[in-house]
Amino acid sequence: MSECNLGHVVIIGVGLIGGSLARVLKAHDAVSQITGVARSQETLDLALQLGVIDKAESDPVQAMKDADLVVLATPVSTIGPILSAIADVIPAHCVVTDAGSVKGSVATAAREALGDKIDCFVPGHPIAGTENSGVAASYADLFVDHRVILTPLPENAETDIQRVQAMWEVCGARVVRMSLEDHDAILGATSHLPHLLAYSLVDFLSQQDRHEEIFANTAGGFSDFTRIVASNPIMWRDICLANRHELIPLLKLMEQQLASYRALLEKSDGEQLQRAFLRAKTARDNLPEVTKVGNDE
Amino acid sequence: MSECNLGHVVIIGVGLIGGSLARVLKAHDAVSQITGVARSQETLDLALQLGVIDKAESDPVQAMKDADLVVLATPVSTIGPILSAIADVIPAHCVVTDAGSVKGSVATAAREALGDKIDCFVPGHPIAGTENSGVAASYADLFVDHRVILTPLPENAETDIQRVQAMWEVCGARVVRMSLEDHDAILGATSHLPHLLAYSLVDFLSQQDRHEEIFANTAGGFSDFTRIVASNPIMWRDICLANRHELIPLLKLMEQQLASYRALLEKSDGEQLQRAFLRAKTARDNLPEVTKVGNDE
Repeated sequence: MSECNLGHVVIIGVGLIGGSLARVLKAHDAVSQITGVARSQETLDLALQLGVIDKAESDPVQAMKDADLVVLATPVSTIGPILSAIADVIPAHCVVTDAGSVKGSVATAAREALGDKIDCFVPGHPIAGTENSGVAASYADLFVDHRVILTPLPENAETDIQRVQAMWEVCGARVVRMSLEDHDAILGATSHLPHLLAYSLVDFLSQQDRHEEIFANTAGGFSDFTRIVASNPIMWRDICLANRHELIPLLKLMEQQLASYRALLEKSDGEQLQRAFLRAKTARDNLPEVTKVGNDE
Repeated sequence: MSECNLGHVVIIGVGLIGGSLARVLKAHDAVSQITGVARSQETLDLALQLGVIDKAESDPVQAMKDADLVVLATPVSTIGPILSAIADVIPAHCVVTDAGSVKGSVATAAREALGDKIDCFVPGHPIAGTENSGVAASYADLFVDHRVILTPLPENAETDIQRVQAMWEVCGARVVRMSLEDHDAILGATSHLPHLLAYSLVDFLSQQDRHEEIFANTAGGFSDFTRIVASNPIMWRDICLANRHELIPLLKLMEQQLASYRALLEKSDGEQLQRAFLRAKTARDNLPEVTKVGNDE
């Protein structure tokens, strides 16, 4: 289907994202080989057994040999340390990218780790995922019609950016480019802030004396509203910390927004309340259809 | 299937809830007749055409003739006025119930409207719904395995409560009883507060300068999180106003909860943040399965 051959692709972190990427690249015959790297032997065994990867490797340094394209699909806090470990053995022609949900902190860590080799690193973020984790949850269609945001660095060669773009286009994704800063501001608002709100609601309710009675009386609306809370807490801790400079002011604004709704209730101002709800409903009803696919992040 | 015959049932408000109730009662042959009452002739015509009701009536007073059981499935703010209108013509043996999402304000309005006839009114609330409104969205399975909360008044006869309970059991619902106060406290936490949070997030984002770019970069997680925002703004305005005494302190506590998360981010306290997320995930993962059905409210 694809005429693109990406060569030897090394995927570090064979979870939902890395596993799905491996599956689709193999399905489209877009690679000569896929090496999967994971710390856990169990994950590697499962990935081999499921046919997700061709070769398994627990040491990222060993995996670099003959690598043409490296994708880091591990929690954002691990990207700097992994890049430090492989910095000296990244082959000359090799391009490295990542799938981290925060781009500013990743780029900073990459600069520190790679030094004057920073030009090989093209930061990226597929806007896809589910609340499930691990290679067993991966599937080849995860990225179809989803956005992948690339946030190229000034040092990147256009041809290197295009290799990363070609990889995501094989996956059926729509690739857009934006600055690191824009990415973190926008994803802070659309993804990280909603996760914090959902976590904070369920956390709050779970600490009420009557929490059992409360949870017994929830329905599907609550379940949908809180589905993102089922995501990996460590991954989301890392994302929130890495993007805290965006999230701190956003949280403050949300506190003010809730206080303004509270003021409307205190004044019994139904007119303003209805206007606010209608504003929200109109925006929600007009969401691009593709964003309503049952995917996360 | 059911041995229960509820006689002539009058459903005032033939929308998602009233229409679904009518459908299931007819499907189970549990009634001698269903009269649907709505202000809009279009709704009545559609309900007749879909076979949801046997007879259509625009005037609730006219519909009371020979009524055995009356269900008010209209927005909470309309329940008082409708009860006032029909107070003098409710047949002696007839039981009246409602499906309103707030029970304290409804009971107060019912007392004012019905005076010493208050014993015929058994307040109720089916914990079911979707973000869609109207009789066209109604379906007979809406209540299957869902909770219906009855909040009987001290004046209610046990036999009258049991007639209402029997009606909901025909629908496949699990009927529980609690006090008006408990109902409003619990549903405030599980339903009304999440709606306010979701409305406030989308309302907040829609007012950002970059709102178009923001909404273009949402994914399925955002879509699920905000699905309840697609609900009817007028209905939710009424619910929030009617339960404002519960919601005002809950909103205040949520503001404090967000501020405490913000403090963790300001201190980069990953350990506490992870603990909070894990607490929430554990509670979410342990939700009773039945509450995860794609239903609302």
